[in-house]
Amino acid sequence: MNDLPKRISINEEGPREGFQIESASISTASKIELIDALSETGLGHMQIVSFVNPKAVPGMADAEEVVAGIKQRDDVQYTALWLNERGYDRALKTGRLHMEGALNLYASEAFLQKNQNRTSEQQRAAQDTLIQRYLSDGVPLGRGFVSAAFGCNFEGCIDPQRVVELVGELITIAEGYGLSLPVIGLGDTMGWATPEAIRRVVGAVRNVYPEQRLSLHLHDTRGMGIANAYAGLQMGVDAFDSCVAGLGGCPFAGNKGAAGNVCTDDLVFMCDEMGIETGVNLDALIRCAQLAEEIVGHALPGSVMVGGGLSKFRDALGKRG
Amino acid sequence: MNDLPKRISINEEGPREGFQIESASISTASKIELIDALSETGLGHMQIVSFVNPKAVPGMADAEEVVAGIKQRDDVQYTALWLNERGYDRALKTGRLHMEGALNLYASEAFLQKNQNRTSEQQRAAQDTLIQRYLSDGVPLGRGFVSAAFGCNFEGCIDPQRVVELVGELITIAEGYGLSLPVIGLGDTMGWATPEAIRRVVGAVRNVYPEQRLSLHLHDTRGMGIANAYAGLQMGVDAFDSCVAGLGGCPFAGNKGAAGNVCTDDLVFMCDEMGIETGVNLDALIRCAQLAEEIVGHALPGSVMVGGGLSKFRDALGKRG
Repeated sequence: MNDLPKRISINEEGPREGFQIESASISTASKIELIDALSETGLGHMQIVSFVNPKAVPGMADAEEVVAGIKQRDDVQYTALWLNERGYDRALKTGRLHMEGALNLYASEAFLQKNQNRTSEQQRAAQDTLIQRYLSDGVPLGRGFVSAAFGCNFEGCIDPQRVVELVGELITIAEGYGLSLPVIGLGDTMGWATPEAIRRVVGAVRNVYPEQRLSLHLHDTRGMGIANAYAGLQMGVDAFDSCVAGLGGCPFAGNKGAAGNVCTDDLVFMCDEMGIETGVNLDALIRCAQLAEEIVGHALPGSVMVGGGLSKFRDALGKRG
Repeated sequence: MNDLPKRISINEEGPREGFQIESASISTASKIELIDALSETGLGHMQIVSFVNPKAVPGMADAEEVVAGIKQRDDVQYTALWLNERGYDRALKTGRLHMEGALNLYASEAFLQKNQNRTSEQQRAAQDTLIQRYLSDGVPLGRGFVSAAFGCNFEGCIDPQRVVELVGELITIAEGYGLSLPVIGLGDTMGWATPEAIRRVVGAVRNVYPEQRLSLHLHDTRGMGIANAYAGLQMGVDAFDSCVAGLGGCPFAGNKGAAGNVCTDDLVFMCDEMGIETGVNLDALIRCAQLAEEIVGHALPGSVMVGGGLSKFRDALGKRG
């Protein structure tokens, strides 16, 4: 039956996913304003920028300035994404980020080729290079990640056994250095997953690696994000990446306006209502979602930010109705 | 564990829910165009209009003309909504609708009062009046319905036992006339449900009435629609109301732009991908969703209509990947 966790960890990725895909005209000050507002909601982990080629991703050209400008709270871990040593060096140099080494493998060779122009072998070698840097810099390993774990526009459905193998490979790479991975993320990078696929893949991984903590990175491209998160919760998954207001987007969808990552506000609403702790104040988060919409200048896909939470009704009724 | 049905019945309510809440300026011809297009998708049941007071619902003032204008297909049941004898008479008079008697009770007395200006006793008496008309006109009973079954803005959460009682009351009313209800719908009228609430309420009803077929009417006000449908599927529910493109809206939400009913296209996508038959052609339905958006003149909440289905990738891969 259900095995819902009592609490979940949310890794807020709205600033990174969102500003990466939005037009580059958003000011550094606006990015900082949103990150600072998110810092006050109870979120404990936030991926705020990516250190990637500014020619490829102009919206992240000001990553250093964003990191330098935020008001840091001690109880929030601010992290960044990088794909290679150059990006890692930039992140390290800021001196203000929570540095955690990440390892990333791809369940789809074709997608890896398109996205990173690497073979699986080259990707694995790149992870070795990175892990050696982490070790020499005293940066702990944070998480492993399997991209395209549920389906791929260029390869179709992904065999759950392929994901199990890659999870094993990530664990093996870490063990090769006497390390372990606190969490391994499974990414529905192109929005192929359904709740049943989540159950199938998470179940297959769990069968072989019952002790490995898993997280889910869910794109809402086809409206399955919250249902997929629920299926993950049912399988006991207690860590999720999500984006305030549903910021982000899917560059691989049929249409440019496709939704981004699963919406943090909607996820927090669902958890609140099901008695699962998130540590996040929903009303404060909804205000951030509205701020995000103002900043990007167009409607964002979040639902609770429009439909409203239920606290005002409960308050009016004078009870947790 | 999971008890997913092999196939589901969809009751498409987009024309009724959508045009009821949209501005009255949509032409009768456009309404007919959408209904006729929906008729070609494989949908077997459609609620196309409501016969209500045109002063209260100006978007339905042309209900008779819409019914008169559609190209009827033999394999589609076209139905209408009414709340009293006057509406029922108008529906009957068209001579073109699939007439099915409906009985409706409310899990929230406060909402019934606001919505219909009736007490529970008056509502029950009104059902008796209607059922006598159905009997004398030879109109079979279609479905019973419990409104506000998962929560109410004016009463808060609803005790699942209250829903069980109302399901029992509906069955008793029908039995009083020697009849049964082919299906009883549970309505999340104000968008309060979460997947766990769906499991709890459906489970409570199932425990007492295991043989009664149930359907779900899910509002997506807070983004839980598809996750709630999934929870229903897990409980073996095999009948759903839904709206193409997510047409409709929730007059009781925090904001006028709040989403309407769960989106048919997204529901069909989820079912297709999980191997549950709907009888509906998703690509044809997506074209209807895009037509609906053109007709109403603003973005609608459906996701698959923006993100795109997966068939083009599968076709390109030359396999059900």
